Amino acid sequence: MKAQEYTVVGTRPIRHDGADKVTGRALYGADFQMAGLLHGHILRSPHAHARIRRIDTTKAEKLPGVKAVLTAADFPQAPDRLVDLGEGDTPLSYARGNVLASGKVLYRGHAVAAVAATSAHIAEEAAGLIEVDYEVLPCALTAPEAMREGAPVIHEDLKTKEFGESTGRVSNVAEHFRHVMGDIEAGFAEAEVVVEREFHTATVHQGYIEPHNATALWNTDGRILIWCSTQGSFVVRDVTACLLDVPVSRVRVTPMEIGGGFGGKIPVYLEPVAALLSKKTGHPVKILMSRKDVFEGTGPTPGSYIKVKIGARKDGHITAAQAYLAYEAGAYPGSMVAPGAMCVFAAYDVANVMIDGFDVVVNKPSTAAYRAPGATNAAFATETVVDEIAEKLGIDPLDLRLKNAAKEGTRRADGPKYRRIGCVEVIEAMKKHPHYAAPLGGLNRGRGVAVGFWFNVGLPSSCTVSVNADGTVNLVEGSTDIGGTRTSVAMQAAEVLGIPAEDVRPTVVDTDSVGFTAVTGGSRVTFATGWAAYEAAQDVMRQLKERVAKLWETDAASVTTDHGVFQSGDKSITFQDLAAKLDQTGGPVVGNGAVNPRGVGGSFSGNIVDVEVDPETGKVTILRFTAVQDAGKAIHPSYVEGQMQGGSAQGIGWALNEEYYMNRDGAMMNSSLLDYRMPTALDLPMIDTVIVEVPNPGHPFGARGVGEANIIPPPGAIANAIHRAVGVRMRRLPMNPPAVMEAIWSQRD
Amino acid sequence: MKAQEYTVVGTRPIRHDGADKVTGRALYGADFQMAGLLHGHILRSPHAHARIRRIDTTKAEKLPGVKAVLTAADFPQAPDRLVDLGEGDTPLSYARGNVLASGKVLYRGHAVAAVAATSAHIAEEAAGLIEVDYEVLPCALTAPEAMREGAPVIHEDLKTKEFGESTGRVSNVAEHFRHVMGDIEAGFAEAEVVVEREFHTATVHQGYIEPHNATALWNTDGRILIWCSTQGSFVVRDVTACLLDVPVSRVRVTPMEIGGGFGGKIPVYLEPVAALLSKKTGHPVKILMSRKDVFEGTGPTPGSYIKVKIGARKDGHITAAQAYLAYEAGAYPGSMVAPGAMCVFAAYDVANVMIDGFDVVVNKPSTAAYRAPGATNAAFATETVVDEIAEKLGIDPLDLRLKNAAKEGTRRADGPKYRRIGCVEVIEAMKKHPHYAAPLGGLNRGRGVAVGFWFNVGLPSSCTVSVNADGTVNLVEGSTDIGGTRTSVAMQAAEVLGIPAEDVRPTVVDTDSVGFTAVTGGSRVTFATGWAAYEAAQDVMRQLKERVAKLWETDAASVTTDHGVFQSGDKSITFQDLAAKLDQTGGPVVGNGAVNPRGVGGSFSGNIVDVEVDPETGKVTILRFTAVQDAGKAIHPSYVEGQMQGGSAQGIGWALNEEYYMNRDGAMMNSSLLDYRMPTALDLPMIDTVIVEVPNPGHPFGARGVGEANIIPPPGAIANAIHRAVGVRMRRLPMNPPAVMEAIWSQRD
Repeated sequence: MKAQEYTVVGTRPIRHDGADKVTGRALYGADFQMAGLLHGHILRSPHAHARIRRIDTTKAEKLPGVKAVLTAADFPQAPDRLVDLGEGDTPLSYARGNVLASGKVLYRGHAVAAVAATSAHIAEEAAGLIEVDYEVLPCALTAPEAMREGAPVIHEDLKTKEFGESTGRVSNVAEHFRHVMGDIEAGFAEAEVVVEREFHTATVHQGYIEPHNATALWNTDGRILIWCSTQGSFVVRDVTACLLDVPVSRVRVTPMEIGGGFGGKIPVYLEPVAALLSKKTGHPVKILMSRKDVFEGTGPTPGSYIKVKIGARKDGHITAAQAYLAYEAGAYPGSMVAPGAMCVFAAYDVANVMIDGFDVVVNKPSTAAYRAPGATNAAFATETVVDEIAEKLGIDPLDLRLKNAAKEGTRRADGPKYRRIGCVEVIEAMKKHPHYAAPLGGLNRGRGVAVGFWFNVGLPSSCTVSVNADGTVNLVEGSTDIGGTRTSVAMQAAEVLGIPAEDVRPTVVDTDSVGFTAVTGGSRVTFATGWAAYEAAQDVMRQLKERVAKLWETDAASVTTDHGVFQSGDKSITFQDLAAKLDQTGGPVVGNGAVNPRGVGGSFSGNIVDVEVDPETGKVTILRFTAVQDAGKAIHPSYVEGQMQGGSAQGIGWALNEEYYMNRDGAMMNSSLLDYRMPTALDLPMIDTVIVEVPNPGHPFGARGVGEANIIPPPGAIANAIHRAVGVRMRRLPMNPPAVMEAIWSQRD
Repeated sequence: MKAQEYTVVGTRPIRHDGADKVTGRALYGADFQMAGLLHGHILRSPHAHARIRRIDTTKAEKLPGVKAVLTAADFPQAPDRLVDLGEGDTPLSYARGNVLASGKVLYRGHAVAAVAATSAHIAEEAAGLIEVDYEVLPCALTAPEAMREGAPVIHEDLKTKEFGESTGRVSNVAEHFRHVMGDIEAGFAEAEVVVEREFHTATVHQGYIEPHNATALWNTDGRILIWCSTQGSFVVRDVTACLLDVPVSRVRVTPMEIGGGFGGKIPVYLEPVAALLSKKTGHPVKILMSRKDVFEGTGPTPGSYIKVKIGARKDGHITAAQAYLAYEAGAYPGSMVAPGAMCVFAAYDVANVMIDGFDVVVNKPSTAAYRAPGATNAAFATETVVDEIAEKLGIDPLDLRLKNAAKEGTRRADGPKYRRIGCVEVIEAMKKHPHYAAPLGGLNRGRGVAVGFWFNVGLPSSCTVSVNADGTVNLVEGSTDIGGTRTSVAMQAAEVLGIPAEDVRPTVVDTDSVGFTAVTGGSRVTFATGWAAYEAAQDVMRQLKERVAKLWETDAASVTTDHGVFQSGDKSITFQDLAAKLDQTGGPVVGNGAVNPRGVGGSFSGNIVDVEVDPETGKVTILRFTAVQDAGKAIHPSYVEGQMQGGSAQGIGWALNEEYYMNRDGAMMNSSLLDYRMPTALDLPMIDTVIVEVPNPGHPFGARGVGEANIIPPPGAIANAIHRAVGVRMRRLPMNPPAVMEAIWSQRD
């Protein structure tokens, strides 16, 4: 299809789920009700690191109303093996251990035991009656701390893997990998200016509004039925089946509406516990997390220690780039350092690169994905170093980026060579944006820029499209809809069918009722599930042409279509009229699409940000913010803009406010949304958006995922703006008032 | 596929829905709950025929807790047109009028107004406060009464259609049609014995255990969401859309489990009313019927007046058969006289036939389908007349039937010529059954036989099958499962896939989530939806062969399959192992089947029944009962046997007990299950079953529908047995003790 022919793709129809969301009809996980429902509560560790000597549940079990108490010992103890948790393989023992601690607790908030009772209050009270005898151990809370000689060992059996091989050495470094391209020493030798800096970023939470929840029924026929809010109903199915040692088809997951995820609702916490409690009691069991549970018991994004060294010639050509990335995995291996390493220099075409990545376990919650996971940390480092080089060389920071920008054919140090990408176009759009030339006015003001890259993912998706007699179609999909993907997926079917987006009725169904569909993550749904919808619609069109051929007694190959009108010779019939004639031409028409697409295209983003810094308090006020992003072809521009604004707001939160503020014992001191300060609408200016469209050659409509790249540039751009405003280089996130004041004071000294 | 190759079809796996049904987990319509739910109540007419002068809802509206009151005036008044209500076309005005009466009430129990309130009790109380000013009119309660000169006219605008043309005459006869074959007069002239008899059959209810129910939410986005128990979720969708004058895609129907239907849960009563109440109130509204509502306000099967005349030569050859069928339509045209006329002589190969059918409106609830609708009435007449001829000629009644039995090539008077059928095989199986030769023993005992025919239907069905990584598959279907069709449909997919039935996970989903699927009725689900499952599974196998070809780098055409093992050259892989490799070979595999099959095959059934009649009380006790039926290929023999036993039990109810016992004003006097006497397990002997298998050439596995033919023979067989026991010919249903005593007394006179 040629772009100019699109009638639905690129328009802005009203979202299909809008009415339910704004009227409060939409049912989220916590809304689920069932006859005979019991309520679960999880007892969590008060220590960041301790050995569990003994758990005595006697008193809890005796409390009237309590129906069952559970510890890790109740889980089937299948032999350890690697299992796919929706984001790659993990040892089963780690997955199980994070759901209920066994032997040791590894972070404050680690689940230790669970209770099911006739009310949530009784369950909570009973949890308080469980006696756990802990031997408290010293803890390690950051990557540098955990990597130090003599640091407390978190997993006694964790042997460091180095460059893909086990070293046999037990340490808190789960893995050290290295990407090399060119000759790093020669690259720096060639450089006329070299800047090397160290960075620290805080542990940050995704901060979705809806806490985790799960209801499970272990039915008498052995089937396990689950209702929950999740980014991947099939992930919940597969992980639960794995932990409970049953075949995947024994588990049915019904995804409820989801109140935000951002990557944090991929991991499975409550479902297997609720299922086991249901098995023990014979009743359905519902468990809801509190906000404190969410902060302390679910996966935030890794805090990190990063060193970046970049060398350039005087003309601005970057000759070498080196990074040392040590990311906190939290309690179990699997930090986001791998994607961090993929993205750290991904916006630049550099010949000589070396990247060292360290995956480090610490006594914090096991980290999870958070919107372009790992990339925001890395880009903060790279983008401020690049800014410093531009400053040293007296080159405009966008010109410097443009000169070194990645393009089609550029190879990344981790391997892949880019197909057509939009890095240059994003930087050019920033350069010519009126914002970039606008006068700043006022004192203590500065303007910063930064760019970011996210690779996006493909993965399997399935869709079914069936035609209604009134000329509308129903679309069934397995992708839980976090950001309005019902509409962006439906639009792609509508485009193929030649009907309005409103005439496609999308439904997200349970895991029994649609083909396998991977997680809603990696900015993949509009890309991959949209592609499945495209294929399903093509299948429908093939069948409809056969029906037309039957009606007119002609050959299906002679039937052409144009905007929902079928033609052959001098005859024509609309999609609507044909839809009414299906029964008489052979029965219903249903089309399938099931894909595992490989043509995923990465997305580049960039920010221009103006700040004013109050030199008396260190408060940074964002005066103006422009976000630019390559969407490939923007399927629904309003959604793209929404993603850009949402990602920017979160990136600003990382930059200025958000962090797990922990005491030395590993206790989070700000585990409420009042104390954990996310930016609100009052804190932010309007975030202007510019959509750049460099179509992705790997998708039928040229779409790229747009959900993630937008969170990456804000910390770097804001740090650079702060430098321009008050002359200090910020190298630690968040850049909150005390941090800015410290920097100003140390500059004055 | 050859029969001997079947590994799943013909076996007896445990039903997929068994655990939920026996443990009470299964959710029926009345179980549905939702936040903010209001409760509806329907005000029903106390008169069988009356003009509505005025409805005053003022007092009802003022009752605290009442949120809305509705009358027929609240329905959109779209111009009249023919609409498909799931069983053929009906004027919209009739469909609307039966849901809420407008102008006149036409039967006692006719819905007049509806209330929504915060509790069911308040709603009921409010309904009592609605003041309706009726002008009571004389009523006509039976077909002969309504056809009489000067009978009360029920529809002032109903012009009798005769032989397909409007006569312009207003009467209670909606239609008079005639089927003619051969020369009826010549046929009777050729006959050496002629028997002509008159019959009356009572109005009988399907007696499903679960009353009708509906919950509807008219959402703020204009979508109407419905949860209900129904035989056809798409029927409810389409009829509700029609009555509310919205496109079908605006309505989503979620079928809950259904506690029996037998044809009576095809019509739509509550859903449009609940939807309008929801629109008025902004809340979801649930309406439940009481048993009295079910009896008085929903469609029973027609009472009928029938005359049958049959002539035969002395050798038993039937030369002519004539029938006059006057069936009660109830309040609106559309009795089951058309199928009655199709079936009345369908078991016999007769050259000269004339059948007159009369569709007569009366002041009773609008009749509905009930298991082989119309055929049981007709067969009662034919089978007793045939028995009398056999008796007169001194021929064994099965020999007489065998001599005249319909076979491949026999043409029915209504047109169709039989393909391969099993009438002869059924009668032969009866003849050679030990029961037929067993000594009766005792006084006042007799043995009767009778046969029956039902044509079954096809209609569109859709299925989707998706493959799980553990080698099981999920099957999505739109056929609500009344009698265990999840399993009989799943088995057909399993057979194609070469996996056990238990490895297919069937789910009945809402109308948004599956292709169009017609009503669960006409014994069509195992036949047509089973066929759709067969096609979907074939589609899966096609795709899996391509995956195998990809794995082995060979040609898909070279891949063969045998019992779930794929082979090419010397390589082989099981379905299970292949299922685990889908992601790496291109993504999920989902198969579709959507069919509108034409090859439906009719089913014949026959009964041998022994009775003992108490000559003092007239009570008839069934001593022994053998049911024989041609199932084509029996997909799941236990279900076939269950259908045969269930149909027989209902046929016995028709024969011996059940009737709407009405007073002269058209009030049903026995509208509870205590007074409306259905046979219970204590009333019946074990019903022995013999499955005859004459494969249907019009189905991949040779299946015929088996749900209906089994209800047809019992009244005739029992009447014939009563005659053999005590010498009286019963020509009125039910043959309850007073009726039998009357017959005995009149014989003595």
